[in-house]
Amino acid sequence: MSNHLDQLRDELDQVNIKILDLINERGRLVKEIGDIKKSQGMKAYDPVREREMLDHIIDQHQGPFEYATVKHIFKEIFKAAKELQEGDYRETLLV
Amino acid sequence: MSNHLDQLRDELDQVNIKILDLINERGRLVKEIGDIKKSQGMKAYDPVREREMLDHIIDQHQGPFEYATVKHIFKEIFKAAKELQEGDYRETLLV
Repeated sequence: MSNHLDQLRDELDQVNIKILDLINERGRLVKEIGDIKKSQGMKAYDPVREREMLDHIIDQHQGPFEYATVKHIFKEIFKAAKELQEGDYRETLLV
Repeated sequence: MSNHLDQLRDELDQVNIKILDLINERGRLVKEIGDIKKSQGMKAYDPVREREMLDHIIDQHQGPFEYATVKHIFKEIFKAAKELQEGDYRETLLV
């Protein structure tokens, strides 16, 4: 039983690292999108697009978490990405 | 340029769904771990183990997000999983 617990914990550690890698991959994509939008004189943050992304995620969600929980986690992930873009913008202003 | 933006947005949508799937996979693992611990009379929530998971994640982190941001997102993910285990525990009490 204890071996099974260790095995599940190893799996959990691996899942954590996969989530980490994807969050960082997401950050790089958001930065790239922000750069393109900036070069076109568009605002990086788009609440309509954020709403669409969230709707798409909720559509695909199957549990075990509740919708509200998934929504909350993704809002935190979106917020982090937004801060990353704003950091870039502040750097641009300082140059 | 606009096509490139669309392509990056598609990639972002795909990354979102991969994150969603992993968060849910994580939820199922945490439930399974909680069930085993409960059957052994152990408390499901273990702050030492949570600290170890976080240290392991931070060790593997390479950016572009800051450590504090990654830590914050994972604390939200851990909190959701803890609530899932506690929900199970409440259900057990109600049976």
